[in-house]
Amino acid sequence: MTTARRDTYTPETLLSVAVQVFNERGYDGTSMEHLSKAAGISKSSIYHHVAGKEELLRRAVSRALDGLFGILDEPAANRGRAVERVEYVTRRTVEVLIAELPYVTLLLRVRGNTATERWAMERRREFDHRVAELLKAAAADGDLRPDLDIRLATRLLFGMINSLVEWYRPHHDAAPERAQLVDTVVHLAFDGLRTAR
Amino acid sequence: MTTARRDTYTPETLLSVAVQVFNERGYDGTSMEHLSKAAGISKSSIYHHVAGKEELLRRAVSRALDGLFGILDEPAANRGRAVERVEYVTRRTVEVLIAELPYVTLLLRVRGNTATERWAMERRREFDHRVAELLKAAAADGDLRPDLDIRLATRLLFGMINSLVEWYRPHHDAAPERAQLVDTVVHLAFDGLRTAR
Repeated sequence: MTTARRDTYTPETLLSVAVQVFNERGYDGTSMEHLSKAAGISKSSIYHHVAGKEELLRRAVSRALDGLFGILDEPAANRGRAVERVEYVTRRTVEVLIAELPYVTLLLRVRGNTATERWAMERRREFDHRVAELLKAAAADGDLRPDLDIRLATRLLFGMINSLVEWYRPHHDAAPERAQLVDTVVHLAFDGLRTAR
Repeated sequence: MTTARRDTYTPETLLSVAVQVFNERGYDGTSMEHLSKAAGISKSSIYHHVAGKEELLRRAVSRALDGLFGILDEPAANRGRAVERVEYVTRRTVEVLIAELPYVTLLLRVRGNTATERWAMERRREFDHRVAELLKAAAADGDLRPDLDIRLATRLLFGMINSLVEWYRPHHDAAPERAQLVDTVVHLAFDGLRTAR
């Protein structure tokens, strides 16, 4: 567990510790006491930075969501054939998931007991929906298999991508190289989705 | 929550209620008191059937594991080209997952605090390993893309398949037909894994 001297604390380091504790104990199972112990600072010091644990949750899932929605604004997500755009978005989604692993892990685990959790789930569904729209456009172009149920394909695609948070540990010796991981996900998904060449 | 009169109780119905409670509350979070309330029978009646909650866990995950390992003994898993065998095993794995949804869900969620949980995780890894061996044989036959990292591909394949337990609700109106679900998983996986035709 990360510990740090109080005078080195910033909102950023507090957030990083909080996300780690949320992922280990579950958000519901985490108290301000747990956060205080893990961070090695007093509860009143934490309250100096944030209003409470729900604000830490909101900041943490926002970081994941900003990363994901940012992809949709990138030039390559907005030009060219839909199939190329959705392939690009898939590649970048895996990259963001890896770069922001603890934050995306938390986002994928929230279950909806508080307003912040429900908001996070809603935003996550919106992202999935945007990707489904791209897949639909690619299907309309004739670039995906014609018998494909897009809703189902979207769920399976995200099922495969999101499963990374369960087993991918970047600092583990046997972990695949990032570039290879990203390539394998994209190839596995799209050489299956595309019309046979 | 299922309730039933004591005199209608069998080990089978008790198991079915226990699995539901384990999946809702987590195995660690479930007490004999919870099981007694959910089943509508006394704790001593439960002890008449089983030694305790760990025995219920063992029976439940055994049901999932027996279903999965049974696939590997089926004739079509043992004859023909490796790529056809592994495609068959994938199809049947999805079918067993759907048929035994609560039991497989529990199996995928156990985390290893008790001997039974550690045993279940070990058996699950063994099943994944058997599928990885089939994929390796298919690659050696030249039937899979030559650049494929089999270990990674196995994880992604199971990531996609296992994600079904998170969202597939067979009695939900918008749920896809079972046959279509199975076909889509197999096509998505293998039209990606196979050498381009």
